[in-house]
Amino acid sequence: MNDPQSAQMKICIDECLACYRECLATAMHHCLQAGGEHTEPRHFTLMIACAEICRTSAHFMLIGSEHHRHLCGECAEICTECAQDCERIGGMQNCVDACRRCAESCRKMAA
Amino acid sequence: MNDPQSAQMKICIDECLACYRECLATAMHHCLQAGGEHTEPRHFTLMIACAEICRTSAHFMLIGSEHHRHLCGECAEICTECAQDCERIGGMQNCVDACRRCAESCRKMAA
Amino acid sequence: MNDPQSAQMKICIDECLACYRECLATAMHHCLQAGGEHTEPRHFTLMIACAEICRTSAHFMLIGSEHHRHLCGECAEICTECAQDCERIGGMQNCVDACRRCAESCRKMAA
Amino acid sequence: MNDPQSAQMKICIDECLACYRECLATAMHHCLQAGGEHTEPRHFTLMIACAEICRTSAHFMLIGSEHHRHLCGECAEICTECAQDCERIGGMQNCVDACRRCAESCRKMAA
Repeated sequence: MNDPQSAQMKICIDECLACYRECLATAMHHCLQAGGEHTEPRHFTLMIACAEICRTSAHFMLIGSEHHRHLCGECAEICTECAQDCERIGGMQNCVDACRRCAESCRKMAA
Repeated sequence: MNDPQSAQMKICIDECLACYRECLATAMHHCLQAGGEHTEPRHFTLMIACAEICRTSAHFMLIGSEHHRHLCGECAEICTECAQDCERIGGMQNCVDACRRCAESCRKMAA
Repeated sequence: MNDPQSAQMKICIDECLACYRECLATAMHHCLQAGGEHTEPRHFTLMIACAEICRTSAHFMLIGSEHHRHLCGECAEICTECAQDCERIGGMQNCVDACRRCAESCRKMAA
Repeated sequence: MNDPQSAQMKICIDECLACYRECLATAMHHCLQAGGEHTEPRHFTLMIACAEICRTSAHFMLIGSEHHRHLCGECAEICTECAQDCERIGGMQNCVDACRRCAESCRKMAA
């Protein structure tokens, strides 16, 4: 089978799934246990939205839809916003790092 | 509980989930059985991409993310393209109709 | 196109998607705003798990996988548990009702 | 943050997401291009069902739902069946390997 995914796309799928894992697990474990700012609707919704756009962007790359570019562009936006909000609240450096790496990778795919 | 979803958003979630159902079931039953043009990669991938963006747009509206606007904008694009391709091939009028209704509803949410 | 979904299956897909909508929106709006018991990890995780199993069970019925029976069986279990927990906490009657209807419908598909 | 995921669970999430990627990409690229037995409804539906149960099992482990055990049990069943069917048709060894590794890992989580 010819490989339909470029090396750059494979890396982007890696980063999207890594960020999906980190955001979803952090929201559902760390944030729910910590409470306070962590479950404030704006922050928590952003975490869940970030997990979902990462999951969907990976899906579009895997199925080979040319529309993955637009999804990756939106993913870069949401990841950047999520990284900033996690940094503001603090104590979620793994999530900040995963979001920044994913945003950088998605930005290249969207270009 | 205060209802966070406007009447317009509820309708858009309805249309997104209806289109998700129609595109996914049509691809996985009608298209796989018919073969030929129906399983040609460009068409089949578009059907699956359309089902997925509809599912995700509904999800973003349900969680209350403000980013639903961008997802709905992309959803309107993909649904319009899917309607045209189903019309070109023929025999999938339910799918054409669901895609057009969803595109119209998503366009309003994106505005 | 021959219709691959029985009338009973169509109803079950309806109930699964209705329960997915109700559980996800209630968790992300009502529960996050109310806090306290509503964002206690055990309850909130159950709401999100219920939304996800409903979404997945509908997906398996739509793609026509014979494994939908096992997913529907698990969906009935989780919906019943979610209905009980929402009833215990109170103020989420729409969610209780959607979970009970979905559980009943999924139990028939699983049989 | 205390880590809620055991080493064994982390490996299982890895295997589920690896199998999701392999099955979905193989179905949507290799199978659609090859046609014939590869797009025969029973085989293609099994590939898509396998991708979806892997995606969902990972999700249940990430959110920390105790119901992940039942999802992982079902995932092991579907992956085993998918591996056998890919082996029967041939030319999809990467998919066979990913399915077998995922099935083995999920079986441990389900126990």
